[in-house]
Order: sequence, then C-alpha cells, then structure tokens
Amino acid sequence: MSSHHIVRDDQEPALIIANGAACNPELLGQLLEWSPLVIVLDSAMERVVELGIKVDVLLGDFDRGFDTEKYKTSQYPIEIVHTPDQDKTDLEKAFEYLIERKIPAANVVWATGKRADHTITNLTNIVRYRNLLKIVILDDHSKIFILPNKFEKWYTANTPISLIPVGVVNGISSDNLVYPLQNDTLTIGYRTGISNAVAKDGIVTITHTDGDLLLMECMD
Amino acid sequence: MSSHHIVRDDQEPALIIANGAACNPELLGQLLEWSPLVIVLDSAMERVVELGIKVDVLLGDFDRGFDTEKYKTSQYPIEIVHTPDQDKTDLEKAFEYLIERKIPAANVVWATGKRADHTITNLTNIVRYRNLLKIVILDDHSKIFILPNKFEKWYTANTPISLIPVGVVNGISSDNLVYPLQNDTLTIGYRTGISNAVAKDGIVTITHTDGDLLLMECMD
Repeated sequence: MSSHHIVRDDQEPALIIANGAACNPELLGQLLEWSPLVIVLDSAMERVVELGIKVDVLLGDFDRGFDTEKYKTSQYPIEIVHTPDQDKTDLEKAFEYLIERKIPAANVVWATGKRADHTITNLTNIVRYRNLLKIVILDDHSKIFILPNKFEKWYTANTPISLIPVGVVNGISSDNLVYPLQNDTLTIGYRTGISNAVAKDGIVTITHTDGDLLLMECMD
Repeated sequence: MSSHHIVRDDQEPALIIANGAACNPELLGQLLEWSPLVIVLDSAMERVVELGIKVDVLLGDFDRGFDTEKYKTSQYPIEIVHTPDQDKTDLEKAFEYLIERKIPAANVVWATGKRADHTITNLTNIVRYRNLLKIVILDDHSKIFILPNKFEKWYTANTPISLIPVGVVNGISSDNLVYPLQNDTLTIGYRTGISNAVAKDGIVTITHTDGDLLLMECMD
C-alpha cells in the first residue's frame, strides 16, 4: 500500500485507525488517498506500520508497555500523544485531539470487530461529539454516522438503511423509505429501525425532534 | 467437526447460530457438545452445513429465494420454521420459538461481526427477553449476557469486565471491581462502564435498581 504524501489543508476529514478488526486494504487505501492526517490508536500501530502506511499521530495510553520510541525515527515526522486518562477510550481522546486542532471531520476505521464491548462503545459514543466533529465510522460492511435533526441525502432505490437510536429518539419521520416512519419513537433494545431501505431513486429525508439517532448503511 | 448426536433434555441451553461472522470452530465445537438443540438462522445454513454440523431447526423468513427444500432430506430429521414477520429479526424469532417450546436458555454464536446494524441490534435486543430466556451471546473475543438486579459470580483477578447500559441504568453498585461503582448511573453513548476489571480472586457483586445492563467479558 502506498503511503500518503500529498499535503492537504485541515478541512478534509482526518483518518483515525482504531484498534479493532482490520478492514479491507482497498477501503483503507481509498480513505488514505483523501486523508491529510492519519491518527493511529495505541498498539494498532504495529499492524498499521506492517501495511506500509505513514502515520502522522500516534495516540494512546500505551499502558501495556507498548514502546513508541522506535517510531520517532522510522515514522519521522510523527507526533506521539500520550493520553493516560482512564475515563476515556483512546477513540474519544482522538476525537478530542482533532477538536482541539479545529479539524472538522474524521473517518474512523478498525473501530468494529474483535471485542464486542469496544465495538458497541465506539459506535454509540460518537453521539457526544455531534456538534463538535463530523464523524463517520466505516468497516467492510457498514458506514455509520449521526443524523442531524433534518437529514437529506440522495440514494438509489433499495439501499439498505438502518436507524439505530442511542437511547430514546422521538418524533422520527421519514420520506422515501420502504417502511416509513411518522412521528415515531425508537428505543434501543426495544424498537429500532433496522433493515429499512430506500423506496425509489431520489432524496431520502429523515427528521427527528430529540435524541441521538445513528444511520447505518450496511451491506452483506 | 463432529456432529452432535447425544440426545439430552431441554433443560440445557439451545445453540442458536445466527448470520454474522463465524466464530472459531473450537468455540463452536465446545458449544455443540453441550447443546441438545441446534437452531440455524436463514442463509447461515449454507455455512453451517459446510462445517458438517447436524441442524435441528432451520428458521428464517427465507426472503432472498433461499431454498430450504434440500435440507429436508440431507438434514433429516429437521424442523423448518418459516417466519415471515418483517417486524422482528430472525434472532428475535428464534428466541420466541425457544420460549414457546419452554426451553429456558440459549447460547448464541455468529451474532456479531459483519454488518454493524445487525451486531448492535443483536447485542441490545436481548434485553427484552430478560425474564423469558437466559441468553448468552458468544464470539471469539466476547461473552455477553444481561445482568439480573443482583449479580454475583466468582472471577479470577484482572478478568476484564465491561458494563454496557442499554439505555439508562440507575443505582449501580459493585464490589470487587478495580473501578468501583456506587449508586452510579450509566447511559449508553454518554457514560458506560467499559474496561473495568476484577480486583482480586473472588466473588464480584454488581447490583442495579432499574434499567437494562449488559455484562461483557471480553478479551483481545
């Protein structure tokens, strides 16, 4: 895989490579093409470096004796950010690092798979950054992001759309979905909007009045 | 892999093989040894049969033209349960099938991985069966189950324990965890109890007053 080497401004999404299951190298390659800044979380660094990727920021608590020293030369220039705070996950710390740097958006890979506790936490904790950072989590089967109160996007017919409430979400209405919602409430664990789909080629509109709603575009 | 062939009574957990990522064959083999009843969901059947496993129940909506006919002979005797209800996932239908048959417990594999919408729904929707069926979801890195209001179990020191609230969970207290909880509230997306651990060899006690709390024993 080629390293990324074109300097772009900080308006493009940063790429965060977390510590879950690796995605398809093709997906990673596509994202690297467009990412001005590559952040790797903790010991995922070993797997990332094996892929020949140039890393800009290595961030983590490094609490398992992980030695960051060697990367100072092999990945020069690299910023190494030691974040020992045990109250936050490394992914949350990466989001806060980007917010601090006023970078407006992030794509996140390797955030799913392997440990289920990390997967569910990574997927749901993005809601607390909803007004601070535009986050998209991607894996080989899924593209996940937080919906604004009014969401509109053009889709082709039959695109699978799942609406997953993080907690309780009220006043949900949709236009151009196969199973329409009309001022509905979704509640995690009890009523979710899984396995919906786009009715016909065109704009899909999804609105909600309150709560945190994730849209997941997933394919088998 | 050997097929299971010892008839046991219905007090042992059934094994549900869902349609996500396959687990390690060793984990599957261990569970098959102890499962009197093997239920496979929808088109996962093709992957399960390739492993040489004898299936007792094939359940699904079979909505993608999946042909069940051939299994009537090759897997004889087999019960084929067609469940076209679009308001429930195949996994929920399998739980309801077991409850109907008065089977008290189920282990679930292949319920995580692949599509993130399926993973998060499978993990969180088990809460609605909390008083009806004892459910454990397992994958290569994780063991997940719902906590009763008072939970006690013997663990060795340093066992990783994550507490994931499905919604809001109040009045959580713990004994023998590294990061103790004391009448705490956890809220999905905002405050979860990830990456806790057992303090010392012995009984861990976790109590909560209301809400749905998952315990995840996860390993890298």
